[in-house]
Amino acid sequence: MSQPVSSGPAPASSVPANIGFDVPAAIGMTVAEVETPCLIIDLDRMEGNMRAMARAASDMGVRLRPHAKTHKSPDIARLQQEIGGACGICCQKVSEAEVFARAGITDILVSNQVRGKRKAERLARLPLLGARTIVCVDDPASVAELSQAAVAAGSTLECLVEIECGAGRCGVPPGRPVLDLARAITNAPGLRFAGIQAYQGAAQHIIPHGERQGKIDIAIEMVRQTLSLLAGAGIPCDIIGGAGTGSYEFEGGSGLYNELQCGSYIFMDVDYQTIQGGDGALVETFDNALFILTEVMSTTVPDRAVCDAGLKVQSVDSGLPRIHGRADVKYIGCSDEHGTIADPDNLLRVGDRLHLVPGHCDPTCNIHDWYVGIRNGRVECLWPVAARGKMY
Amino acid sequence: MSQPVSSGPAPASSVPANIGFDVPAAIGMTVAEVETPCLIIDLDRMEGNMRAMARAASDMGVRLRPHAKTHKSPDIARLQQEIGGACGICCQKVSEAEVFARAGITDILVSNQVRGKRKAERLARLPLLGARTIVCVDDPASVAELSQAAVAAGSTLECLVEIECGAGRCGVPPGRPVLDLARAITNAPGLRFAGIQAYQGAAQHIIPHGERQGKIDIAIEMVRQTLSLLAGAGIPCDIIGGAGTGSYEFEGGSGLYNELQCGSYIFMDVDYQTIQGGDGALVETFDNALFILTEVMSTTVPDRAVCDAGLKVQSVDSGLPRIHGRADVKYIGCSDEHGTIADPDNLLRVGDRLHLVPGHCDPTCNIHDWYVGIRNGRVECLWPVAARGKMY
Repeated sequence: MSQPVSSGPAPASSVPANIGFDVPAAIGMTVAEVETPCLIIDLDRMEGNMRAMARAASDMGVRLRPHAKTHKSPDIARLQQEIGGACGICCQKVSEAEVFARAGITDILVSNQVRGKRKAERLARLPLLGARTIVCVDDPASVAELSQAAVAAGSTLECLVEIECGAGRCGVPPGRPVLDLARAITNAPGLRFAGIQAYQGAAQHIIPHGERQGKIDIAIEMVRQTLSLLAGAGIPCDIIGGAGTGSYEFEGGSGLYNELQCGSYIFMDVDYQTIQGGDGALVETFDNALFILTEVMSTTVPDRAVCDAGLKVQSVDSGLPRIHGRADVKYIGCSDEHGTIADPDNLLRVGDRLHLVPGHCDPTCNIHDWYVGIRNGRVECLWPVAARGKMY
Repeated sequence: MSQPVSSGPAPASSVPANIGFDVPAAIGMTVAEVETPCLIIDLDRMEGNMRAMARAASDMGVRLRPHAKTHKSPDIARLQQEIGGACGICCQKVSEAEVFARAGITDILVSNQVRGKRKAERLARLPLLGARTIVCVDDPASVAELSQAAVAAGSTLECLVEIECGAGRCGVPPGRPVLDLARAITNAPGLRFAGIQAYQGAAQHIIPHGERQGKIDIAIEMVRQTLSLLAGAGIPCDIIGGAGTGSYEFEGGSGLYNELQCGSYIFMDVDYQTIQGGDGALVETFDNALFILTEVMSTTVPDRAVCDAGLKVQSVDSGLPRIHGRADVKYIGCSDEHGTIADPDNLLRVGDRLHLVPGHCDPTCNIHDWYVGIRNGRVECLWPVAARGKMY
């Protein structure tokens, strides 16, 4: 792995005073010149993560359809296709899919139910933008909605039947309900049955390897039974999809799944870095590539420092951020616009900069408008978080 | 209080299919036609909250400078000035202040430290837009930064010295350190000493009334000592500011504070609604006026329903949302793009709509691009969350 982007105090500003109104950096700036707080990507590390997952999928003989809900960026999606072995992308909302389709991504799975006439109509127009469009289904009424929209748009929507395989969220039970829906899809004008979706989201963050595997083994068995039933009925599945960064080795090695939908591996967050491999050690296949760059803004309270990264720049639903590369200070409190840092040796000064590893990448990225891509200590690219806030 | 906006299932869509790509509604729509998930404001209730706080401040003989970090909307800030008794606004970041100054708000306190040359330069340009600009200071080096920026811009920045009065965040100890900073400000070109900032953020959400009051009493005593020292030195204070929705009655009734900085009262969230009044009962001065409108999208798992409001539309840092007006169902789980609802009687159907009271308003609003203002069941206004994501 490459070295992390450099840390340390910011120099006196030498950049034009009129930058930064909406964009936190300009191409060519040093990390120390970038405005804080902002999201920075260590490009070498992110590309390393992309290549590592591409190799893993290739070695297991399965396709990789990374989840773009992690990054919400067509620039990153294109890079995943160019160097990261991606056959296409997943996203989770119709309005996200629109962003990616308009940016030229041509193979999109909305790995979620799309319900309601208006959203179905939006979905059915995506093929007209040149994107193969796949969606999940768990209800006969949804088949009717999607069919009507596809017919009206003159397009074809591909459908995966979602199996509820342990997360207790969307999806039908395995076996017969899947077969019934597959037949309904096959018979519906404008739709094509494309396979099954079996993502066990509740297993991804289980720390012990064996316990995580046990949950996925249950899902795999559900998939096996269902595929057997579909095969018996003469219904082939192009896509047997699922898996996340916490579990992909199990689905990928199952001999059944043929598409992995991992997302967080490109960035990694504190939450995902707690999970253990088969040897009980922490999994180190992927390295932290996304950081909140923050600056110390007050040190008036002894043993404390206050930085400029609070809830306005991160989601703490899965825990507080970790300060990268610093064992001597610790992020201990997050209020709306401030982070409180324990600094028992009073080392930090106003203007010092720190790199925070977000507790949870996906909702943190959903707050920011820009990624600042860093290589060799300088800003190489600025990427809009184009599907940020796309919630429909 | 007015009745809440109506709940119930969505009808078959009759609105043009091409709406909603970025905006969740159009003026005149019914609530049932608005795209989900989105933030809706019950305008009658919000205006009621504004008037109630205006009355409270007026009755106590203090000014009200509401915190715009709650709503991040110049439209709402203008309404607070027009009908809500506001003398100006607070915000928390320079980039937020820019949004409000450009929208014509002419009296802005950044109730926070603004550190670093570049941010100081941005701040010092706000008076050139016609805005009285006030900022907090807790460090002599900050005085020098702000003075240099104000001189360079040819503007005047007003400064409040922040007292650390219990939250353990920014600010200097009361008494002599405040006096020293006040003198430094007075002597600094381009700056004007305007008073003191004493906000006890850690007290706002304490549930028992007496315990909350105890924390504020300590802050009030710090302010009293400090004002006495400043008066002895012949230094007057225009502004003695602080207070939040949880504590304003104490600061407002102190005879010392003359500006209240409450923010959340206009919307109210689940977290603020847990606090008790002097009689031990929940405080009901303000009513829920902000809701996440969400739609049920899957009901395949018995006793459960899944709605379309997850972390992509809300912050759960202070707890999960509450389902408004429904004792029979409960929001129990929040994943990235889904909300899981306990529905023990299996009452909910796909397409049913629910109003969620956010767990914490400020960071929830910071995700959304639009407020949909509702009155008498119809969309009356669409307001951009213009300072959303303004983190610098």
